[in-house]
Amino acid sequence: MAGISPSRRVRKTPFSEAVEAAGVKGYTVYNHMLLPTFFETVEADCHHLKRHVQLWDVSCERQISIKGPDARKLVQLMTPRDLNNLSTDRCFYAPVVDQNGGMINDPVLLRPAEDEFWFSIADSDLSLWASALASAYSFEVEVTEPDVSPLAVQGPRADDLMARVFGDEIRDLGFFRCRYLPFEGQNFLVARSGWSKQGGFEIYVAGTEYGMSLWNALESAGKDLNVRAGCPNNIERIESGLLSYGSDMTRENSPFECGLGKYVNDSQLDNCIGGDALANERDKGTQRMVRPLELSGEIGPCTSVWPLVAGGKEVGKIASAVFSPDFAINVAIGMVDQSHWDAGTKIEVETEYGVRSATVKDKFWN
Amino acid sequence: MAGISPSRRVRKTPFSEAVEAAGVKGYTVYNHMLLPTFFETVEADCHHLKRHVQLWDVSCERQISIKGPDARKLVQLMTPRDLNNLSTDRCFYAPVVDQNGGMINDPVLLRPAEDEFWFSIADSDLSLWASALASAYSFEVEVTEPDVSPLAVQGPRADDLMARVFGDEIRDLGFFRCRYLPFEGQNFLVARSGWSKQGGFEIYVAGTEYGMSLWNALESAGKDLNVRAGCPNNIERIESGLLSYGSDMTRENSPFECGLGKYVNDSQLDNCIGGDALANERDKGTQRMVRPLELSGEIGPCTSVWPLVAGGKEVGKIASAVFSPDFAINVAIGMVDQSHWDAGTKIEVETEYGVRSATVKDKFWN
Repeated sequence: MAGISPSRRVRKTPFSEAVEAAGVKGYTVYNHMLLPTFFETVEADCHHLKRHVQLWDVSCERQISIKGPDARKLVQLMTPRDLNNLSTDRCFYAPVVDQNGGMINDPVLLRPAEDEFWFSIADSDLSLWASALASAYSFEVEVTEPDVSPLAVQGPRADDLMARVFGDEIRDLGFFRCRYLPFEGQNFLVARSGWSKQGGFEIYVAGTEYGMSLWNALESAGKDLNVRAGCPNNIERIESGLLSYGSDMTRENSPFECGLGKYVNDSQLDNCIGGDALANERDKGTQRMVRPLELSGEIGPCTSVWPLVAGGKEVGKIASAVFSPDFAINVAIGMVDQSHWDAGTKIEVETEYGVRSATVKDKFWN
Repeated sequence: MAGISPSRRVRKTPFSEAVEAAGVKGYTVYNHMLLPTFFETVEADCHHLKRHVQLWDVSCERQISIKGPDARKLVQLMTPRDLNNLSTDRCFYAPVVDQNGGMINDPVLLRPAEDEFWFSIADSDLSLWASALASAYSFEVEVTEPDVSPLAVQGPRADDLMARVFGDEIRDLGFFRCRYLPFEGQNFLVARSGWSKQGGFEIYVAGTEYGMSLWNALESAGKDLNVRAGCPNNIERIESGLLSYGSDMTRENSPFECGLGKYVNDSQLDNCIGGDALANERDKGTQRMVRPLELSGEIGPCTSVWPLVAGGKEVGKIASAVFSPDFAINVAIGMVDQSHWDAGTKIEVETEYGVRSATVKDKFWN
C-alpha cells in the first residue's frame, strides 16, 4: 500500500498527534483533511468498536456556518427538509440537492445559535455551493468554515465514558439531540450522533487548543472501559447501511434513491433548489434505490464501481462491499434498479476479483 | 508513513494500472482522486525530470465543462481575466474568485469548442460554485465534469517523445497553445503546458478506454529517451515558484497576493464576481504577496503552516519548503507582508523542527 504524502493542503487536525501516537495504519482524505481508516486491522477495530468504546478523529466533518439575518432563508433554499422544528438543541439529517435534485452533500444540520446554522458536511466543498447562492441572491449572510473539529466517542460504553468527563446529565441526551457542556472552562456542543450504530456522541471542538487535552481526558477516564483510538469502520458501517457520499451516492442520485425520501418534505418543494425535480420524481416514482446485498465467494477491497448485471444488462452497481466476520458473509451496499430491488432477487456482480452472485436483502445487518 | 485506503470516493484513474506497475510509493488526494507524489524518491524523481522525460498521471486535474448559449456569460462572471482572446487553440491561466476577491481555484481555462469551456481545476469543487451560479442566474448552460483525464509528458525530452507518437507538428505548438491530434483514430486535445518548468505537454484523454494504450505507446516510444513514470515534483515546483492551491494560497488570498495580478483585467471588474473587492485592492495596494524564501539549517517535510516572525509579530507564513539538492539550500514559498517582502530581508520562521532563518529572494530558482 503506497503511503500518503503530507502537505498543508491535506490538513492535519487538533487530534493528529494522538492519532499518530496510537499507531494509525491507514488514512483517507476527506474534505481536504486526514481521516484515519484503521489502527489494528479493520476487522479487529470493528470487533473492539462493538464491545468497548473508541475515540474517533472526525475533524474532517467540517462545519459550514451560515450566519446572519438571511441565514434561515439560505439554508431552507439548500434542502428539501422542513426546518420548522430545528431548534438549537437538535440535529437534522438534511440532504442538500442541486437544481436537478441530485445529492450535493448529506450533512447533519445543527443550529448552534438562533441566527446560525452549521452544515456538518460529507466530502464535498459545500461552502462553494452556499457562497455562490449567497452572492447571487445578495443574501445578508456570512458563509464560513469555522475552526470546529468533531471528536466522536463511539461504542456501547460511550455513555459511561462521556459521563465521567461531562457528568451524568449526558445520559439523558436523546438521539440527534445536542447540548453545550463545559470542559476546562469551555463550552463544547455535544450531540448524541455518529457514523456507527454502536451508539455514542460527537463533540464539536472549537479551535485546536483543547483538542489534545480533551482526547487525553477521555483516554485517561476510560482505561478500565478499554477505550482506544478508532475511526469510521468500513465493516460496521456497511453492516449498518450507513452511506458514504462519493461512494454509495453521488450527484447522479436523488435523496429518494438514497433512501432519504422521508427528509423530502412536500411543504418545502416550492422553497428549495431542485424542488421541481424532486416533486416530479415523487409523482413518477423512483427508478432505483439503495439496497443491502449479500455477495457470494471471496472478494478483496472494493475500490471501484462493480456493475450489477442481469440478462446481460446493467441493473445497478455496488460501491461498498466487505467481508463481515460477525455475519460470516460479504455485506454490500448497492444502487439497484426497480426491476431487481425486491428482497431475494439474485443478480450477478462483476467485481474486481471476478463475477460473484449478489442477493438483495430485506434489511441491513446492524 | 500510514498507507492510503482505497475506495470509490477516492477515485482511481485511466492510468492507475500503469502507475501501480511503475511502483508508485506515495499518493495524495486531489479533487477526490489519487495523485502520485513520488516513485523512487522525491529527490531522484526531480533529478530524472530535469534530464529526461516523464509520464504524469494528472487525471485529478478534472475538467469542469460549461456548455451552452450562456456559457461565455457564466465563465466571464467567474474570472477577472478578460477572455476576449480565448480562442479554441489557447489555454488561459484564469483565477476564479469569490465575492470578496478570494481565490476559489486557479484553473487553466480552455475552450474545446466555440460554445464550451473547460476549467482544468486545482483542488476544490469548482463545479459546485459554477452550478450554483448557473441555477441562481437561470443561465442556459450545462455544468458537468466530463470523463477527461490529463496525462502530462514533462521534461526536456518531451518534444522528442511526443513527436514520435503524435508527429513532428507537435514541435511547433506554442506555449499554452492547444490542438486536437489523432491517436488510434481518436482526437485528443494536446496543450503545451504542465506543472513544471522543464517543458512539456498535457494530453486531455477522453474516457478510460485509450488511457493505457496511450501510456504504453509513449513508454514504448521513449525507451531510449529514458522515459519513466513521474508526477508533480515537490522540489522542482517550489524551485519554479509553482503555487499549490490549498497550500500556498487559499480563499483568504486574492489573485494579487498570489502574484496573479496580470490576470486581473480592469475591463472585467464590472462583469465578474468579486470585481469590486479586486478594484478596491488595486486602488489601495496589496498588503502581502507570494515570495521565494531560502531557509537556513535542516528541515523535514512541511506539513503545516510555518509562521514568519519579526520582532515577535507574525509577518507572513510558509506552507511549502523542501531541501533542493541542485541548489544545495532549502527553498520555500511564503506569503509575506509588505513590511518584509523586499529581497534580502531576513525573518525568523517557526518550523515544525525549530526556529530557522528565512531570507526573501528576488526570484524563484528555475
